[in-house]
Amino acid sequence: MSTTGLPFDDIRDLVRSMPGPDTAARHAARHREEELTKPSGSLGRLEEISEWLAAWQGGVPHVDRPLVAVFAGNHGVTAKGISAFPADVTVQMVANFAAGGAAINQICAAYDMSLKVYDLALEIPTDDFTEGPAMDERTCAATMAFGMEVLMDKPDLLCIGEMGIGNTTIAAAIYAALFGGSGQDWAGAGTGLDSGGQSRKAEVIDQAIAFHNGHLSDPLEVLRRLGGREIAGMAGAILGARHQKVPVVVDGFVATSAAAVLYKMDPHALDHCLFGHVSAEQGHIKALEAMGKVPLLALGMRLGEGTGAALAAGIVKAAARCHRDMATFAEAAVSNRD
Amino acid sequence: MSTTGLPFDDIRDLVRSMPGPDTAARHAARHREEELTKPSGSLGRLEEISEWLAAWQGGVPHVDRPLVAVFAGNHGVTAKGISAFPADVTVQMVANFAAGGAAINQICAAYDMSLKVYDLALEIPTDDFTEGPAMDERTCAATMAFGMEVLMDKPDLLCIGEMGIGNTTIAAAIYAALFGGSGQDWAGAGTGLDSGGQSRKAEVIDQAIAFHNGHLSDPLEVLRRLGGREIAGMAGAILGARHQKVPVVVDGFVATSAAAVLYKMDPHALDHCLFGHVSAEQGHIKALEAMGKVPLLALGMRLGEGTGAALAAGIVKAAARCHRDMATFAEAAVSNRD
Repeated sequence: MSTTGLPFDDIRDLVRSMPGPDTAARHAARHREEELTKPSGSLGRLEEISEWLAAWQGGVPHVDRPLVAVFAGNHGVTAKGISAFPADVTVQMVANFAAGGAAINQICAAYDMSLKVYDLALEIPTDDFTEGPAMDERTCAATMAFGMEVLMDKPDLLCIGEMGIGNTTIAAAIYAALFGGSGQDWAGAGTGLDSGGQSRKAEVIDQAIAFHNGHLSDPLEVLRRLGGREIAGMAGAILGARHQKVPVVVDGFVATSAAAVLYKMDPHALDHCLFGHVSAEQGHIKALEAMGKVPLLALGMRLGEGTGAALAAGIVKAAARCHRDMATFAEAAVSNRD
Repeated sequence: MSTTGLPFDDIRDLVRSMPGPDTAARHAARHREEELTKPSGSLGRLEEISEWLAAWQGGVPHVDRPLVAVFAGNHGVTAKGISAFPADVTVQMVANFAAGGAAINQICAAYDMSLKVYDLALEIPTDDFTEGPAMDERTCAATMAFGMEVLMDKPDLLCIGEMGIGNTTIAAAIYAALFGGSGQDWAGAGTGLDSGGQSRKAEVIDQAIAFHNGHLSDPLEVLRRLGGREIAGMAGAILGARHQKVPVVVDGFVATSAAAVLYKMDPHALDHCLFGHVSAEQGHIKALEAMGKVPLLALGMRLGEGTGAALAAGIVKAAARCHRDMATFAEAAVSNRD
């Protein structure tokens, strides 16, 4: 952290200094794809994924140390009754992750990926965003910096997910602030609200947008005021990964809101990110379309925890393996097209 | 084989005697999904997959011995210039599978699945279907019976794929015969035909349909006349799997044509099948829609070899693992919804 400027100054510097893709590595990957024993282009998005890995890893694509990072946070706005589950569930689910009992544990086991869960001061929910900013600037920036620490394990592919009762309300408010629209446009069923619950959720979002009106043109202010420690942590992790040449697979509705904060700071800020799936949460496809992103999977999931990102990373792993280990036409003595 | 009737009689008997789903196992899986530590329904198609596995395996869903079976065949109609690759490539690619150099080898390695390749008399291409039936009834029935032998390895999930230069022409002709339409409706780029090549392919299909006109109301006659040993083998494998309580993941455009033959014999014949992906080959989505099937993945792939099925099986594996190993709300002491 800078000792002279504002806490967000360092974050802004990191966004301004993001490295671009390695075009030589991308071209080398494209060239190799043309030599492998298959009709050109016939692996579809798997070929695109290999080239994307090469561009952002800066060399031959590989997925040997994939990491799923799950950020957990609690939210004062749950007092407004915007979730089908009680707020205690956040800490209970963190314990479930530690015990290996959650969905994300099984998906990581199925695909041999590491899982780390970052518990972000669950005992101190962020402030209710209908009554004030969720966080102060120092807390928000420090949480983003903490999120960058997921890179210390040197993953070669990072999946970003979250857990936090109430956080689809937070994410919906962030989308409304960044992309426009009302609470009704962005509020979905979350963990299972009925239509009355969804209306209440939409009203709460509208209240928050009205309260913070005039302060939402800066994406980092949106993040700080509408908050979510786990969302700040994910935004930091995505930004840190860019600087460390680690491609990122983003999970669903909530994780994408963290990415969207960076996107609004620089539309190229997510070029190193793949959007793993489109959630059943209604606003997700709208958010993806607003950023021109095409998700890899569409499985009607809406769990969070990084589950959609981890499933997509299973595909990314297969893509990297095909790229690395397939024989070329020359090696296999297979005739190329006439 | 029966010694008295026609060779297809045994096949017809097997279609008539197909077992149905185990509804008790399906209900038990549904019940367990409700108890697991996630909002009800939040794993989307993964939950549906677990219930489908339970129904067709007849018990607790599991994917411990997945097998990818690739059937390879050669086709006399390649003499008509309907493929971008020479017919020699079929046998060359079978050698590439054996050496571990093809895309399907890498996907199987990534997901720890077994791979078996069935070389179906590659030195004896089926007859050119524009000039006569591709196969006689005995050959077709025997090839279907041979396809059933993939079950001898006792897989608990079977992925069906193929290799055969010229076989998108065969599959397109089968779709035209089963579902109507002309060659142009079903002929795509295959391994990479230009528009002139696609027009020639469509004409060849139209010639075949005209030649066999009046003999295409019986789906097994469609299979025999329009042929493809690998397509007969896949149809047999799908049918055999049903009798052995093994759920099947079907690959793309060509593999689906084998499934379609069974579908036209009985619209419930594919209830134990999941369609792994929708191919970039233009007719595939039409064929799936004609049967009311919704593919799991859409990755723009058009390689065959079982690659789309195997990627989908990676998702199926994760679904089974979530179902089996997740903690229940009671076990994890997580509060259920308010």
